[in-house]
Amino acid sequence: MERPRHQGMAKNTYMRWRLPLVCLLWEVAMIVLFGVFVHFGAEADAHWEEEKREMNLTSDIENDFYFRYPSFQDVHVMIFVGFGFLMTFLKRYGFGAVGFNFLLAAFGIQWALLMQGWFHSFKNGKILIGVENLINADFCVGSVCIAFGAILGKTSPIQLLVMTLFQVTLFSVNEYILLNLLHVKDAGGSMTIHTFGAYFGLTVTRILYRPNLEQSKDKQGSVYHSDLFAMIGTLYLWMYWPSFNSAISDHGDAQHRSAINTYCSLAACVLTTMAFSSMLQKKGKLDMVHIQNATLAGGVAVGTSAEMMLTPYGSLIVGSISGIVSTVGYVYFTPFLESRLHIQDTCGIHNLHAMPGLIGGIVGAITAAAATEDVYGKEGFIKAFDFTGAYQTRTPSIQGGFQAAGIVVSLLMAFAGGAIVGGILKLPIWGDAAAENCFEDDVYWEVPEDEESDAYHMHNPDKPASP
Amino acid sequence: MERPRHQGMAKNTYMRWRLPLVCLLWEVAMIVLFGVFVHFGAEADAHWEEEKREMNLTSDIENDFYFRYPSFQDVHVMIFVGFGFLMTFLKRYGFGAVGFNFLLAAFGIQWALLMQGWFHSFKNGKILIGVENLINADFCVGSVCIAFGAILGKTSPIQLLVMTLFQVTLFSVNEYILLNLLHVKDAGGSMTIHTFGAYFGLTVTRILYRPNLEQSKDKQGSVYHSDLFAMIGTLYLWMYWPSFNSAISDHGDAQHRSAINTYCSLAACVLTTMAFSSMLQKKGKLDMVHIQNATLAGGVAVGTSAEMMLTPYGSLIVGSISGIVSTVGYVYFTPFLESRLHIQDTCGIHNLHAMPGLIGGIVGAITAAAATEDVYGKEGFIKAFDFTGAYQTRTPSIQGGFQAAGIVVSLLMAFAGGAIVGGILKLPIWGDAAAENCFEDDVYWEVPEDEESDAYHMHNPDKPASP
Amino acid sequence: MERPRHQGMAKNTYMRWRLPLVCLLWEVAMIVLFGVFVHFGAEADAHWEEEKREMNLTSDIENDFYFRYPSFQDVHVMIFVGFGFLMTFLKRYGFGAVGFNFLLAAFGIQWALLMQGWFHSFKNGKILIGVENLINADFCVGSVCIAFGAILGKTSPIQLLVMTLFQVTLFSVNEYILLNLLHVKDAGGSMTIHTFGAYFGLTVTRILYRPNLEQSKDKQGSVYHSDLFAMIGTLYLWMYWPSFNSAISDHGDAQHRSAINTYCSLAACVLTTMAFSSMLQKKGKLDMVHIQNATLAGGVAVGTSAEMMLTPYGSLIVGSISGIVSTVGYVYFTPFLESRLHIQDTCGIHNLHAMPGLIGGIVGAITAAAATEDVYGKEGFIKAFDFTGAYQTRTPSIQGGFQAAGIVVSLLMAFAGGAIVGGILKLPIWGDAAAENCFEDDVYWEVPEDEESDAYHMHNPDKPASP
Repeated sequence: MERPRHQGMAKNTYMRWRLPLVCLLWEVAMIVLFGVFVHFGAEADAHWEEEKREMNLTSDIENDFYFRYPSFQDVHVMIFVGFGFLMTFLKRYGFGAVGFNFLLAAFGIQWALLMQGWFHSFKNGKILIGVENLINADFCVGSVCIAFGAILGKTSPIQLLVMTLFQVTLFSVNEYILLNLLHVKDAGGSMTIHTFGAYFGLTVTRILYRPNLEQSKDKQGSVYHSDLFAMIGTLYLWMYWPSFNSAISDHGDAQHRSAINTYCSLAACVLTTMAFSSMLQKKGKLDMVHIQNATLAGGVAVGTSAEMMLTPYGSLIVGSISGIVSTVGYVYFTPFLESRLHIQDTCGIHNLHAMPGLIGGIVGAITAAAATEDVYGKEGFIKAFDFTGAYQTRTPSIQGGFQAAGIVVSLLMAFAGGAIVGGILKLPIWGDAAAENCFEDDVYWEVPEDEESDAYHMHNPDKPASP
Repeated sequence: MERPRHQGMAKNTYMRWRLPLVCLLWEVAMIVLFGVFVHFGAEADAHWEEEKREMNLTSDIENDFYFRYPSFQDVHVMIFVGFGFLMTFLKRYGFGAVGFNFLLAAFGIQWALLMQGWFHSFKNGKILIGVENLINADFCVGSVCIAFGAILGKTSPIQLLVMTLFQVTLFSVNEYILLNLLHVKDAGGSMTIHTFGAYFGLTVTRILYRPNLEQSKDKQGSVYHSDLFAMIGTLYLWMYWPSFNSAISDHGDAQHRSAINTYCSLAACVLTTMAFSSMLQKKGKLDMVHIQNATLAGGVAVGTSAEMMLTPYGSLIVGSISGIVSTVGYVYFTPFLESRLHIQDTCGIHNLHAMPGLIGGIVGAITAAAATEDVYGKEGFIKAFDFTGAYQTRTPSIQGGFQAAGIVVSLLMAFAGGAIVGGILKLPIWGDAAAENCFEDDVYWEVPEDEESDAYHMHNPDKPASP
Repeated sequence: MERPRHQGMAKNTYMRWRLPLVCLLWEVAMIVLFGVFVHFGAEADAHWEEEKREMNLTSDIENDFYFRYPSFQDVHVMIFVGFGFLMTFLKRYGFGAVGFNFLLAAFGIQWALLMQGWFHSFKNGKILIGVENLINADFCVGSVCIAFGAILGKTSPIQLLVMTLFQVTLFSVNEYILLNLLHVKDAGGSMTIHTFGAYFGLTVTRILYRPNLEQSKDKQGSVYHSDLFAMIGTLYLWMYWPSFNSAISDHGDAQHRSAINTYCSLAACVLTTMAFSSMLQKKGKLDMVHIQNATLAGGVAVGTSAEMMLTPYGSLIVGSISGIVSTVGYVYFTPFLESRLHIQDTCGIHNLHAMPGLIGGIVGAITAAAATEDVYGKEGFIKAFDFTGAYQTRTPSIQGGFQAAGIVVSLLMAFAGGAIVGGILKLPIWGDAAAENCFEDDVYWEVPEDEESDAYHMHNPDKPASP
């Protein structure tokens, strides 16, 4: 059936040498760099007694592994199953959604371990890694998965790998500026992961604008079961988001608090999303696109403030607002962005990550500015914002100002970086598909001919399906 | 294709104003009440040093968060993916199963935090919450998900929200009576969650009896892939049930023991379920309905006794029996309940939750009555049943009597509460569908027209799918 | 439609009395043996104070439950969802894949608790179990799930239960020889689980060789959505493999290190798999079979060495190589094995488990032989390899030799055991299907007639689907 198309695609989307070359060169580079730089941190190294004494850990259970590993595994599921399946809603792009997300994430976490390691875990010429580095690598790659959502179905695997390479690099620089230079708090990544990742992806898709995309309009929809596959992604993101926002918070009450705030925010978000999904549709029916995406905005919007004393009721307010903003975005902004600004945002990341990410940054700034010793306690206050050493002169309001500055820096990095990377991806050498072949797995994947065979089966049950 | 139906439905199932109104009013109420009552507990609050000294925790790792958070996440998955996907077996009600379960659970956990908080975590006018409260809120909502199984496909989202509101309230009252007044042990909720939730739901569906339901009989079946989606729910419930039964047990050996007992019971349950599924079918073939549901009865049936010294071999016995009872229930009782008692139980919760729940309550009573200092150890015995303060005079046999009383109270609360709530849901204002439109997502959801388009595709592969 | 087949099958595949008989007799045997032998270990028993003092645990948090339970749950998911869904790729064997995997695993873990208990946890005539026993039981059953992959679609449930009974027994003996007699380290089971399980299964399928299997060739393929279901299994295996390899390692740095090594190896494996999948295909398209399977080889290949000081960069090398070997295996070896050696390997376990398992054993031997006090630290070195008591004279090179011997023993056990069990399964009494009915759920399961009904629906939307 697709034969005529095949030949058309074979011309420009032939991956046979390009893709293996990129993957293998990359992996060799990783092996060399890991060999030179990466070592186990004290808590993962067998050569352990001295460090143990230094850190005076009284028991193995105080190894950071037991504080963070369960959260790490939840985050890991969010990156690979959460993002991967969330994007399987397209009727004929499920392989690309799950498979390319798998590829770019596995590619990105290795580079992220190095980039973030050089900035944050570099000691005597070595990068010392532990479970927290694994979490941060997953976080970093999360911002790439977000950007992937904007260009889903329109790019070749090589373009995705190239984007991953650059985005992970820029992410790490931006993260360093925010956390180390501006001394900003952003444990759940509203700014570093969501705002940066989303506006980066939106800039890229703007530059890769395809005027004739309506040629593949029939493939941009979902089918009944593809919407159910997408719900697997949605629910895992929703359920594990409390782990995401608490994964790298301080041990003890900070992790505990982050999980509770996120739990509350997400619960409220579901209700306002359902309300507006029904309200904004003429027939009053619920739209799966909103349920699959806008219900998650509550997790994004408390990313910065979850570990602070946002309080459960503050979380409900933030979650409620973000659900409304996100749903309204899907109904009104997305069509506007496409028609007016030529931003083709396949998964609507502007509604799920960009706007809620900004809300999250702002809420974080306000919560920090409003912090008082009375609420945090004398020790807790200093601990919560690391107002020690060079920063002991900082006041909450000053901290709030720096938090706000973090949003601006993230936006600038996203726009500038996205523009450059988008330009690179526009080069005609990466093997992306023609407009009429977008959103079609058949371009890069061996696809079983089930539709024909099934139909065949139905009407001639006795004959075998394949020729 | 469905157009004629559409118009028919539009009359009575129009949700556009009713659903948003309920959701938004509710969320505003939650925000106000949370603002007035809900605060972080000591272990989640930044203002932490004093409490820490009081509770003399020697290390952050002793924060309750690290004892319970992994179990909490497993329970969370059971509520949203477990129950949600278990109910996707219907061929055209997958959106409603996952989506409405998502809605009512997110709606219910907020109310449960308040209701259970007032009863169990109220201190100086404030509800102090921590991870254990999140687990209990999920548990409470679990009983609503169970009841949802009985009316799946026959109710409007508004009816589900109204039911959730009342059921969470009644659950909390019943739980208070059992745990605080009768001083009953029920960590895994055989009585409070399963017995109460199931009989409540069965009473509701009895009152909402639809004489003409066979008009939608063609939609009450499954399709091949919908049965696989349902298995996702089944397996997550089955795998995480040890976390469910151990989540709120005492730290240390009690949690450890609960997990082992549940693991054993569930393993045995699978074998007896498979055995009877094959035995009770003329052709000797296995029935997916049994595998999807009866295999879980073993978890329900040790809910009360898992944390006690039931012993692995006792667990195998309980699991084996519950698998048999549940499978027999699907084959013989469910048709009987529908034809004779007019109880239309979509998911067969009578077999999966009601009967195994009763078994669980009884086994718990017996295990408690049989407890001896010899088995539990002097300290362990008192600790296991909190035979302290006002209860130090209790003997095991007396405790067994109170456990049995707990079953009776749960049943009475379920029947009375279900009757009242059923009556309320019978009002003609909630927008439920006509009998011929039951088990059909198209009533409340925007459904992609994949069947037509696919069929179209199959026969005219070159033409686009949508008009 | 399938009626003619039905009658044909009914002759030889009638399970009605055989399957229930096996399941129920088995469960009764388990109950008796558990009653006689199985007790709670000290950390799960209520009678706890004395032991606690003995083991001088300073806090409940030091209960082994909190060190291992999160990893246990991840392993549990790998066995039931991971292996179960990985095998749902066949278009008409999803029920059998998930359902029979569920049955044999639930059957096997009970027997494994006893067998492994007698060998490793036997004290004063009692088997004392805790969370580590549950993990080991899951591991043992994992080797059966692997073997199941080779015979998927060609055997009756009874054959699977018989195989499980024998394989669990042989696994435990082999494990005892390796761990206790040879004093070999194999925490992630490259030898005991993967090498043994895979070669055992390959030997069994060789003996059950079906010359006319091409008669069901049309059913050996996948359909679009069955490939997505399989990706659920793949991703859960991939994400949770760090937990698998670290689950039973020593507390503290060993568990921490195992997780990091496995994470790195798996990431590298994905890239080389994608590279070779594209390179080895004429059109340069990616093949889902490779993505679903070969991406996991990296976890298998560091199973023995993950807890050692393999280092992240060593892990990248091992992962890269195993991904290449596995993908090449799918393209060249599998067809060769079938045509030349008459080994019909449905899931290609030779590529995913056998070869990577051997690599894992060899890498483990080398890593052990290369160990130095300098790298492990004086205490760490002795601790890592238990060079205490009778083994304090062992040098790394000697240990390496014993590790290598472990591979040979595992292979011999697999071939001998597989030959015997294969012979038993060849008996004509177990009710396996005829060649033309292989890979067809309809033989042992009640299958919804969705294809007809859907097709019917498409063309006559108003008429009900079922007669």
